[in-house]
Amino acid sequence: MWEQSEHGLVETDVVVVGAGCAGLAAALRLHDAGEDFAVVEAADRVGGRTLSEVRSGSLTIDHGGQWVGPTQRELLALAARFDLGTFPTWETGQHVEIWHDGRRVPYAGAAPDTGPGIAGYQRVTELLDRLAQTVDTESPWLTPRFAEWDAQTAHTFFAAHTDDEDALRRLALAVQGVLCAEPYEVSLFHLLFYVASAGSFRELMETEGCAQDSRFLAGADGPARAIAELLGPRVRLDARVRAVERSPGLVRVCTASTTYEARRAIVALPPAAVRAIEFTPALPVDRAGWLAHSPMGRVAKVHAVYDAPFWRAEGLSGIATFYDDGPVGVVFDNSPPDASAGVLVAFVYGDRLSDWSTRSAEQRRTTVLAALATVAGNSARRPVDYAEKIWSLDGFVHGGYGAFVAPGGWLGYGRGGWRAPTGAVHWAGTESASVWNGYIDGAISSGHRAAEEVLAALAGGWSA
Amino acid sequence: MWEQSEHGLVETDVVVVGAGCAGLAAALRLHDAGEDFAVVEAADRVGGRTLSEVRSGSLTIDHGGQWVGPTQRELLALAARFDLGTFPTWETGQHVEIWHDGRRVPYAGAAPDTGPGIAGYQRVTELLDRLAQTVDTESPWLTPRFAEWDAQTAHTFFAAHTDDEDALRRLALAVQGVLCAEPYEVSLFHLLFYVASAGSFRELMETEGCAQDSRFLAGADGPARAIAELLGPRVRLDARVRAVERSPGLVRVCTASTTYEARRAIVALPPAAVRAIEFTPALPVDRAGWLAHSPMGRVAKVHAVYDAPFWRAEGLSGIATFYDDGPVGVVFDNSPPDASAGVLVAFVYGDRLSDWSTRSAEQRRTTVLAALATVAGNSARRPVDYAEKIWSLDGFVHGGYGAFVAPGGWLGYGRGGWRAPTGAVHWAGTESASVWNGYIDGAISSGHRAAEEVLAALAGGWSA
Repeated sequence: MWEQSEHGLVETDVVVVGAGCAGLAAALRLHDAGEDFAVVEAADRVGGRTLSEVRSGSLTIDHGGQWVGPTQRELLALAARFDLGTFPTWETGQHVEIWHDGRRVPYAGAAPDTGPGIAGYQRVTELLDRLAQTVDTESPWLTPRFAEWDAQTAHTFFAAHTDDEDALRRLALAVQGVLCAEPYEVSLFHLLFYVASAGSFRELMETEGCAQDSRFLAGADGPARAIAELLGPRVRLDARVRAVERSPGLVRVCTASTTYEARRAIVALPPAAVRAIEFTPALPVDRAGWLAHSPMGRVAKVHAVYDAPFWRAEGLSGIATFYDDGPVGVVFDNSPPDASAGVLVAFVYGDRLSDWSTRSAEQRRTTVLAALATVAGNSARRPVDYAEKIWSLDGFVHGGYGAFVAPGGWLGYGRGGWRAPTGAVHWAGTESASVWNGYIDGAISSGHRAAEEVLAALAGGWSA
Repeated sequence: MWEQSEHGLVETDVVVVGAGCAGLAAALRLHDAGEDFAVVEAADRVGGRTLSEVRSGSLTIDHGGQWVGPTQRELLALAARFDLGTFPTWETGQHVEIWHDGRRVPYAGAAPDTGPGIAGYQRVTELLDRLAQTVDTESPWLTPRFAEWDAQTAHTFFAAHTDDEDALRRLALAVQGVLCAEPYEVSLFHLLFYVASAGSFRELMETEGCAQDSRFLAGADGPARAIAELLGPRVRLDARVRAVERSPGLVRVCTASTTYEARRAIVALPPAAVRAIEFTPALPVDRAGWLAHSPMGRVAKVHAVYDAPFWRAEGLSGIATFYDDGPVGVVFDNSPPDASAGVLVAFVYGDRLSDWSTRSAEQRRTTVLAALATVAGNSARRPVDYAEKIWSLDGFVHGGYGAFVAPGGWLGYGRGGWRAPTGAVHWAGTESASVWNGYIDGAISSGHRAAEEVLAALAGGWSA
């Protein structure tokens, strides 16, 4: 076990930067292997992009990542280890699409198969699925048409395959929904990689059996909190890392008050947070360029709480998609499993966030509740509780759900910069995952991979 | 004049962050207006992306920005004020193109008009010039085809207009040469904006009468050094800003040892350096997104010094362009005006830098000198002095010449994020210039604009 000296020096074998799911998964693996380590976290809590809060007495709200699906094996294994229960996402009843011209188009089932632009949308998404099957998710640069796809935006590809404005609106909302970004700023290759890393386009988009299948009874930051509890004082909060210095055989990780000296470091942060750390020597060109081509998505999550899920009495599911210019992209029913309250969650993402986030708190609330009223009826305007989390204004995470890759990011910097260790500094975070990249599951597997790299290095006596 | 208290608190009216050409130009304007201000600079020198060094006794080498052209009025005015002399860039003799198949294609004059791919190259660059004439450089989002052009990469546009591989190689080198980036990562709109901000494609590319017309006798960081000398102790070096905190009527700018309290701040840093500062409250979504879509170009500048410009005896200019896969993109004759030494400068940029920068110092030197030998003959392999500056590994600047804008950066974030003040925080830096964006001249005009914003605010008693 490490000891802190009087002068703020901590000596340990491994220092993990970031106590989100990636960093804590790495730390748990190190713990299980009996290694000596410390975890340093800038915020005053663990969990990173998962953040659960108990409000109104007993209602758990997830301000961040919230879902788990059946193929997210790393997350399910961690949930099982710590005995964290889940329940199916509510999706019974009639869903609705809200269109820019005011049309309300109801639909049922997992995905719409009629409505404006549906033919073009289905044709393009089926093509995305076919192309995604050729993506090498472990070594993306070995994908046959890698260079061609990364040198264009997703918008360029969409516009080449349909000129139906409504199909393009559907495609834009899909990109917002999975990446919190707009087709005009995302690399086509990255979109295909993302589809491949989840398994298929359907896996990303649908609820039952897919990415949005279930939620955690006690909140999605449960795995992070359970690991932190197990690790106890090895996890230091309120410890923002300002500098990482490498010298032969040694890595120094510096906060304002403490220097951690270790043989290896694992940096498990969102790309935007890595850029705020001063590295000595400077990060290699490809690693720095990779980070610089990985903007964070734009997203806010807004919860409105009611006494009951009143929309169900009218046969409505509370699920809606908005093909308009309002702030809300998608609405889900986030009520608890016993329906002891009614909860709607609205996602504000991409371009929709830029304008909405600059408005007053009252205007933000009014516009979101107006959107909910079009979904669930006028009672939605009078919630008993209302909560916003604008991730793009979070001083530690800087956006969400994750970073996407801008055109050319993979092509110019991927092979050298994606996740290869930089000397004794190893890289975790969901953006470095091959499976369920961008999800909690990807964060966990990235932590495991980085921990395995470190354990192999320590066992082999590799020097930095 | 401000006074530093015992507790590291400095009170002043305006704090300028960054002592490059933008920050110092802003400070000089504040000085001329009789305002109270401080300039804080992270490095141990002023000049930012200009960096001149006297080597081998009396030879001045410019590791950074080095040229001035006749339409760069802000830079010329500053040079005149401080009596800084210039001399014409050497370009007499025969230039040469080096092709990937080993061909050496000589040419003379300002630009080649024969050679592989020249027809396709000329057709596309003439088209770029025509489209650039429609760009609104003050309010880019008002450009008629703004959204269409920013939603695609320059590569997408090039490939749509020529399938001649040699023309595409020429276009790629042109983008490397002006932005230190590759066509696959740059927004087409940004390229057009950049052309428009310089005046024309020819203005960017050519020497006499254009961007590369002349050099400074005592080095291009002369204007920065002259301003710093005038301002004296108002410029603080070795002062890296870690945090900028806004509260009503007050901006706090914090280094490790000192807090500067001011009514207004001007942040005059490259985008990559801004991202390392912790802002409270967080930067607005559009400003943060703008920065996140502004990666720095990849560039190194390599000088080889000889006893004399021996290549001139053989009728060679020492100017060369490389359409191959080697490290060097372009070579210029950087000899002093009296030809008392021979100096070749090689630019390593874009993809070329990624690989080269990871090699050993010896390998880097050997490969660059081999390229110079193909230009000037085998004597080029034995310089009397050799100097590299890899800007992408610079811990303060993080790349060069400047940042470019990735696809969607202008479209998604430009109107709100490009250069509009954020409360009492104003933004300078060449990336915020409308004229000669990316150049020293643009840095200076951006500093003037930010200073004018601040002077107007202070005169009007605007609160933060």
